[in-house]
Amino acid sequence: MNKKSMFEIVKSDLILLETELFSVIHSPEKLITDMSKHLVEAGGKRLRPALYFMCAQNRVCDTEKLVPMAVAIELIHMATLVHDDVIDNSAIRRGRPTANSCWGNHSSVLIGDYLFAKAFSLVANKANNQMLKVLTDVICSMCEGEINQNRSTFNADQAENDYLGRIAQKTADFIAASCELGALAAQLPSNEVQAFREYGYSLGMAFQITDDILDITASAEQLGKPVGNDLRQGIVTLPVIYALKNSPQSAELREIVQTPNMSEEKIKRGLRIIHDTEAVEYCYSRVAHYLNTARSIIPKSVAIEHKEAFNAVADFVGLRNY
Amino acid sequence: MNKKSMFEIVKSDLILLETELFSVIHSPEKLITDMSKHLVEAGGKRLRPALYFMCAQNRVCDTEKLVPMAVAIELIHMATLVHDDVIDNSAIRRGRPTANSCWGNHSSVLIGDYLFAKAFSLVANKANNQMLKVLTDVICSMCEGEINQNRSTFNADQAENDYLGRIAQKTADFIAASCELGALAAQLPSNEVQAFREYGYSLGMAFQITDDILDITASAEQLGKPVGNDLRQGIVTLPVIYALKNSPQSAELREIVQTPNMSEEKIKRGLRIIHDTEAVEYCYSRVAHYLNTARSIIPKSVAIEHKEAFNAVADFVGLRNY
Repeated sequence: MNKKSMFEIVKSDLILLETELFSVIHSPEKLITDMSKHLVEAGGKRLRPALYFMCAQNRVCDTEKLVPMAVAIELIHMATLVHDDVIDNSAIRRGRPTANSCWGNHSSVLIGDYLFAKAFSLVANKANNQMLKVLTDVICSMCEGEINQNRSTFNADQAENDYLGRIAQKTADFIAASCELGALAAQLPSNEVQAFREYGYSLGMAFQITDDILDITASAEQLGKPVGNDLRQGIVTLPVIYALKNSPQSAELREIVQTPNMSEEKIKRGLRIIHDTEAVEYCYSRVAHYLNTARSIIPKSVAIEHKEAFNAVADFVGLRNY
Repeated sequence: MNKKSMFEIVKSDLILLETELFSVIHSPEKLITDMSKHLVEAGGKRLRPALYFMCAQNRVCDTEKLVPMAVAIELIHMATLVHDDVIDNSAIRRGRPTANSCWGNHSSVLIGDYLFAKAFSLVANKANNQMLKVLTDVICSMCEGEINQNRSTFNADQAENDYLGRIAQKTADFIAASCELGALAAQLPSNEVQAFREYGYSLGMAFQITDDILDITASAEQLGKPVGNDLRQGIVTLPVIYALKNSPQSAELREIVQTPNMSEEKIKRGLRIIHDTEAVEYCYSRVAHYLNTARSIIPKSVAIEHKEAFNAVADFVGLRNY
């Protein structure tokens, strides 16, 4: 038997999603259409809508009914990315120029607002109130996570738990919500809704820790953005927290972490200090922990071929190098 | 008989609104609470929630049920203001330092997103789908209006209709939606919902034209921000469009309008040219036109004392000097 990946299983749903994404972003204001098109075309894995479709898969007869929420999920993801790029003043994402570098901050803030509103407009008529609440609460959570991150920059006195709480809000809650929303759309029993939510949460935690590892191990080409960006921006990630605690050069690293506008030489030195510890190995052990949790929590009622696909997503998150 | 103003009629509702505003903005992330508190305390007239309450007045037994949508309306208004201030890089609003000048652009973009999401979170469980759709569509419209405004800066070749379309989206649609939502909450017949919507729309058009007049006639103290700000930012308003068409110094004004980063002297000269025409009188005649439409459209079924209050709001919009 050929094992199908999640992206293969939900392939036809994702094709519908792309068509709908291009359709809903059309505005009489040409600049909105142009900017939104740029964001949609920037692509990405569509991980969140794929998980949403996957968690609803084979339980909803009319898959077209699932599409508006999937579009809303991806629009919200795009809105957060475009606002992140304004905030971080980023010029490049996924190897392409960002909206703010093409059209300026003014229009980029507004296009983010527009996409948020468009997302809710799409589902306001269709989703039930519980699903709407999940969607709105997760945006609040993401904003809290981002504001916490902003407040904590250049602060070397952070524990692993501060970091975990922040990435839960910043990343894992949204992936959890995407899974939960699929399960809710399929009207699964509440224990299964909860299980899928926790699957998404664990996956999301592993996803963000991997992201933070890659920021110090990958090449700029792999990342589609500069290496060591987090350190440069003062964002204190798990490898840094580990190295601050365990490196013999902890004091030197602390000074680098705490200093805004560090020279590129100092950033390189900081990365070297981190690599000289077992930070990367430790972080991958945390990734493995979350992925094991994700794998263990998939409800028994899930068909065997889907279970394998859910497991494969966990493998994919752990192994990705971009 | 003592005539009651709208703000007196809905006074107890507005008190509930204030309490709820302070309650919903509380977040475990202290910076969010601090920033939101700063925005709530900056005050403002609460015109939109007041109109919402007014249009629902005496038709809804349990006024507490009206409060979440009123809070959502004001939170959305606050979110647009905080993003506007980031976009315009404004340091002062209503005589107080803006969020971006206190906490920077990073947190200000995020607090706006947070307030949008909070607003929808509040009503997701309570409002019906039609009301949610009105609320989301109006945010899309406001973003379109703002993006249009941004695209049209420093462009002297604009007709009155370009301006009217833009302020409809930027301002009038939201005031229209506030009235419509009140009427929908009161389950009024659809012709009355439409009438209240048009009342709000006309009021909103008059409101924005007055704003644009005040930007060139009021003092900095009255405005709580610098005079001639629109001209400085390249925003082409109705008095400018009138003067460009009718002034003997049209060519000189055109050059001022089209030039970014004008000197303060040039801005003063531009204001002088506008004042030497009948631009202000003309704009006030447009205000009067919209206010007459507003007054004429109030449904006959509205109780006489409420009708007087609706009329008084129109008077207030026409006469305000701040």
